[in-house]
Amino acid sequence: MVSQKIKTALAGSSVIRAMFTEGKEMAKKYGAENVYDFSLGNPATPAPEAVKESIKKILDEKDPMYIHGYMDNSGYEEVREKIAQNLNKRFGTHFHFHNIIMTVGAAGGLNIVFKAILDPGDEVMVFAPYFGEYRSYAANFDAKIVEVNPDTATFEPDLADFEAKITAKTKAVIINTPNNPTGVVYKDKTLKGIAEILKQKQVEYHTDIYLISDEPYRELVYDGNKENFLTKYYENTIVGYSFSKSLSLPGERIGYVVVPEEASDSDMLISGINVANRTLGFVNAPSLMQLVAAECIEEKTDVAYYDANRTLLYQSLEQLGFCCFKPEGAFYLWMKSPDEDESRFVEQAKKYHLILVPGSAFAWKGYVRIAYCVSKETIEHSIPAFRKLAEEYRLTGK
Amino acid sequence: MVSQKIKTALAGSSVIRAMFTEGKEMAKKYGAENVYDFSLGNPATPAPEAVKESIKKILDEKDPMYIHGYMDNSGYEEVREKIAQNLNKRFGTHFHFHNIIMTVGAAGGLNIVFKAILDPGDEVMVFAPYFGEYRSYAANFDAKIVEVNPDTATFEPDLADFEAKITAKTKAVIINTPNNPTGVVYKDKTLKGIAEILKQKQVEYHTDIYLISDEPYRELVYDGNKENFLTKYYENTIVGYSFSKSLSLPGERIGYVVVPEEASDSDMLISGINVANRTLGFVNAPSLMQLVAAECIEEKTDVAYYDANRTLLYQSLEQLGFCCFKPEGAFYLWMKSPDEDESRFVEQAKKYHLILVPGSAFAWKGYVRIAYCVSKETIEHSIPAFRKLAEEYRLTGK
Repeated sequence: MVSQKIKTALAGSSVIRAMFTEGKEMAKKYGAENVYDFSLGNPATPAPEAVKESIKKILDEKDPMYIHGYMDNSGYEEVREKIAQNLNKRFGTHFHFHNIIMTVGAAGGLNIVFKAILDPGDEVMVFAPYFGEYRSYAANFDAKIVEVNPDTATFEPDLADFEAKITAKTKAVIINTPNNPTGVVYKDKTLKGIAEILKQKQVEYHTDIYLISDEPYRELVYDGNKENFLTKYYENTIVGYSFSKSLSLPGERIGYVVVPEEASDSDMLISGINVANRTLGFVNAPSLMQLVAAECIEEKTDVAYYDANRTLLYQSLEQLGFCCFKPEGAFYLWMKSPDEDESRFVEQAKKYHLILVPGSAFAWKGYVRIAYCVSKETIEHSIPAFRKLAEEYRLTGK
Repeated sequence: MVSQKIKTALAGSSVIRAMFTEGKEMAKKYGAENVYDFSLGNPATPAPEAVKESIKKILDEKDPMYIHGYMDNSGYEEVREKIAQNLNKRFGTHFHFHNIIMTVGAAGGLNIVFKAILDPGDEVMVFAPYFGEYRSYAANFDAKIVEVNPDTATFEPDLADFEAKITAKTKAVIINTPNNPTGVVYKDKTLKGIAEILKQKQVEYHTDIYLISDEPYRELVYDGNKENFLTKYYENTIVGYSFSKSLSLPGERIGYVVVPEEASDSDMLISGINVANRTLGFVNAPSLMQLVAAECIEEKTDVAYYDANRTLLYQSLEQLGFCCFKPEGAFYLWMKSPDEDESRFVEQAKKYHLILVPGSAFAWKGYVRIAYCVSKETIEHSIPAFRKLAEEYRLTGK
């Protein structure tokens, strides 16, 4: 009665969402303060005061027919131009409004880009471990996901494996740095290596291969890592962005896609993405929030907040004897499971009201993801629970 | 380089959007006051003052983490419950929040319903003339559109043609009353006839056939026509709604879908639509606007405004000798083209700065759609232009 694809989706539904739901149920049962929910990438800081102020300013100063009305499917020109100028200033690019398409969040952006470029049977490469929703988005257009293994010493992509798996059917490569779930920031050398391989393979196969840079965590970098923008490495790069994390607006579904002039057939691609925005049913990004994003474009993400959480959590877990990758960006900590079956480890953690996400949700077993976009108190109060978990696994703390 | 489907979409892109763009260009050239743009179904009245007030109230009273944060993919429970109660009060239904899924406009709603029910090759029936975007939405899921002819005396569906075209592959029937583009409100007898046929065919083929009621114009009815709600006619009815017209918020992309308990396997269907909302990339309806819609649920559409436009336009065109269907709902007037080639008529109209949409955009030639969701002045000032057009076609005015 429901479609076959949805039956499959229902059977293997999002592990992250399931953990989030389970966390909420545990919070009802035991009290929210006694459950340490590290499941969801929901910003822990409220939207900056400027968001509230700019909404009120827009409502008081602009015509409601403009604020809430239809506009071009790609969004308001003034908003797109402001975003283009902001990117140009920060990254030395040369965009103008034509290169920017406002989207219903990063998820909406990825789907309209996929719809614009993917034919059934095309291959979309992802660097494991990766955000599981990419699988659903590729499946929407009957494309095939090809997983590239990581170098497990660094959790950067294994470039030899990458090169070996590119075929004549490779249409897109998704890249996500700072990375969900590992917190790794891909190094300049890695990005240059990926670009070099793609350039060669495009020549070898006479194809266009798009590098799709999913950048919701662009501004969340620590320890002197710089904000990066990937169009400078490789011409056929399409960027997807969301204001979910930078302005703490995940529920508002507001983001954008960037298609540089250098991308092959860039005009047709831009038209295609614009049409896909309409025909997939997004029509346009929510209008008021487009105007708000433009008004707040200079607002800074509260990086210090997440950095403090990161340091506290990383140091505490290491002291307890867990083996962690020190996050360089985003708000996720990638930890080796002390149990060879990380799903069993996640179950054990629940006994202590710790909600973690198993690595299998990101197609990489043996690890767990801990989203530290929570209050500092949640982390502080969770440490005794992690200690009990460490003791259960007889870890030797430092 | 772009996908085959998008290439096709680009070639046959929305006639309505193209006319809208052309109208904007003519307005630049000749001055907005000298162009009579009847192309787009964009509400002509601003959002009620209550929208602005409720946004400010929500911003001042609620936690920004709640206002702008993630919630269940189906939307806030409190919002869905308010909508359920509002429907129950108005239409004697028995919904609760579980039956309501908040969507990114009606277009987002139709797409997630389609994704939840359609397998490739399934047939989706539409009653011609119909909103052309339905074709794109069905194509997203590789379903086949089957067009049912109208009774051209009334522009209600021809029930004999409907019955004859239902097959074992019919999965859904889209119904849209008050109708875009004709302005017709389907009569009780017609709706009962459709329900009766569907019930018989479900038995005959041992299938479930969903009646999908697309209701953005639900409240826009004139001349004593009553607001209607179609779940009472047929158990397998799914309702899609948008606040675009009723609250004049088309750019905000806020609507909902209703799945009654009586629909077969309703729980699985609701779960499927919820998952489709996530995996198609909508994730959830924009959060602040969900809360606004709930706050403004008792607001009334300014029916009198559109009614005045309707009367003025209808009477003027009839006096000039055009042959019109008197609109009973929505804000469209359906007019017979005095030229056997209605595209040529639309071109002629442009000479007088009149922007109309040809019936072929709705899969029914020989007619044009005039969207009278414009200012009263636009209609008044357009009459001399329509007069010249009438003279060109040697129509005999009254």
